Amino acid sequence: MRVTFLGTGAAGGVPLYGCDCPACTRARAVVDFRRQPCTALIEAGETRILLDAGLTDLAERFPSGSLSAIVLTHFHPDHVQGLFPLRWGIGKNIPVYGPPDSEGCADLYKNHGLLEFRRLSKFEPVTIGNLVLTPLPLIHSKATFGYAIEDTDGQRFAYLTDTAGLPPRTEAFLKNWRPASFALDCSYPPQSDLPRNHNDLTLALTIAETLAPAKVWLTHVSHELDAWLLENIGDLPPHMAVAYDSQVVSDAGFL
Amino acid sequence: MRVTFLGTGAAGGVPLYGCDCPACTRARAVVDFRRQPCTALIEAGETRILLDAGLTDLAERFPSGSLSAIVLTHFHPDHVQGLFPLRWGIGKNIPVYGPPDSEGCADLYKNHGLLEFRRLSKFEPVTIGNLVLTPLPLIHSKATFGYAIEDTDGQRFAYLTDTAGLPPRTEAFLKNWRPASFALDCSYPPQSDLPRNHNDLTLALTIAETLAPAKVWLTHVSHELDAWLLENIGDLPPHMAVAYDSQVVSDAGFL
Ligand SMILES: [Mn+2]
Ligand SMILES: [Mn+2]
Ligand SMILES: [Mn+2]
Ligand SMILES: [Mn+2]
Ligand SMILES: [Zn+2]
Ligand SMILES: [Zn+2]
Repeated sequence: MRVTFLGTGAAGGVPLYGCDCPACTRARAVVDFRRQPCTALIEAGETRILLDAGLTDLAERFPSGSLSAIVLTHFHPDHVQGLFPLRWGIGKNIPVYGPPDSEGCADLYKNHGLLEFRRLSKFEPVTIGNLVLTPLPLIHSKATFGYAIEDTDGQRFAYLTDTAGLPPRTEAFLKNWRPASFALDCSYPPQSDLPRNHNDLTLALTIAETLAPAKVWLTHVSHELDAWLLENIGDLPPHMAVAYDSQVVSDAGFL
Repeated sequence: MRVTFLGTGAAGGVPLYGCDCPACTRARAVVDFRRQPCTALIEAGETRILLDAGLTDLAERFPSGSLSAIVLTHFHPDHVQGLFPLRWGIGKNIPVYGPPDSEGCADLYKNHGLLEFRRLSKFEPVTIGNLVLTPLPLIHSKATFGYAIEDTDGQRFAYLTDTAGLPPRTEAFLKNWRPASFALDCSYPPQSDLPRNHNDLTLALTIAETLAPAKVWLTHVSHELDAWLLENIGDLPPHMAVAYDSQVVSDAGFL
């Protein structure tokens, strides 16, 4: 399995519009520090799955026929907005798996074009080519699934965003399933109040401690976390790393 | 008044995802032939109004404080999708005027961030800096306004997309108001059946004949119209031109 973090940003991205904090200033000056909408590409042999579709240049990145499927965590715009132009295309249809959400986002269901929406059910695995994905309910303001992803070699990776903490059944599943590594929502630096909808670093650390994987990749990162990290980067334990846009993690990198 | 056609494309843009027609092939090879979501910038002195917000790089094009307002024709994703990331920004709020539409698009109203939505009423002019805009109802699948736009020198321009034909009161208004030029929806080449939601060239020619302005700029152009024009460009009357992305029309160019 090969994981590419195509985007690692919170909803507003980094740099955030109108913000001159040290993180946003740095991202405006050096493109490597920018964070686009949270997205990952999962590859295993010929199978290529795009996890979320918030990037707005999907047509250029993924020519017709180059994706096995798109799998959505949920229907917030920062996770689906790239589908708006794509759907009007022609040629091969694209299966788009996602959580049960009767609303979807704007008119995506009604005018689905070449997108074939398929509803997943919690804890019911779906096989897409060389990958098996098990949807895991998360805690967010809209129906949201994380995914436990396994390839034919038994490599295990989990993708867990957007969420604030984990529901007991999802936590129990992951404790038992034992992924080598996972990507985890960490939108904010440590907050004084319990955050809603997204993890802060305190919650992310708690989850990492509970599940104890070899590696945790923090994603869905806001400019506030980036700014905090500029002063506190040494505070992250060695098995946790903040993912960056276009970072590739292949099998060896998991452990 | 200075009009810049920042985007002149139909919802799928040109090139269309997965399409290898002559127009899409040309647009993939030569960036000048690409068409982004239909958008115009209207400038008069210090006043800068963005007409529609479907471009996905608004943050880079329009730094905080650089726009007087955004004015929306309607809430279809190809006209508002650029607002999804922008709203999470900080700093100066942006007034966003639009037609009465209780739904809006996705969660834009609910999570409006720095956007200040303001509802316009048909035929009731609004003054924004050096410009006066009168909302004109159009014929589309969602509540949609065209705009009659006048600057302090009395220069008059109208922007009429997305629409299939014109409602009688809008036609009567424009006949009386006599803009020097206007931009007009022309999504398709001539169709055998009366088109819905968007003009084909036949309908656009009829509207141009009825209103008889000095110049008509065709916009919201699909790859089908571009492909048709590759073989039939000589068929356009001299007072009609197909707009292209980033084309600037200033006062002298109107007549
Ligand atoms: Mn998100
Ligand atoms: Mn979300
Ligand atoms: Mn449109
Ligand atoms: Mn429309
Ligand atoms: Zn910032
Ligand atoms: Zn085409």
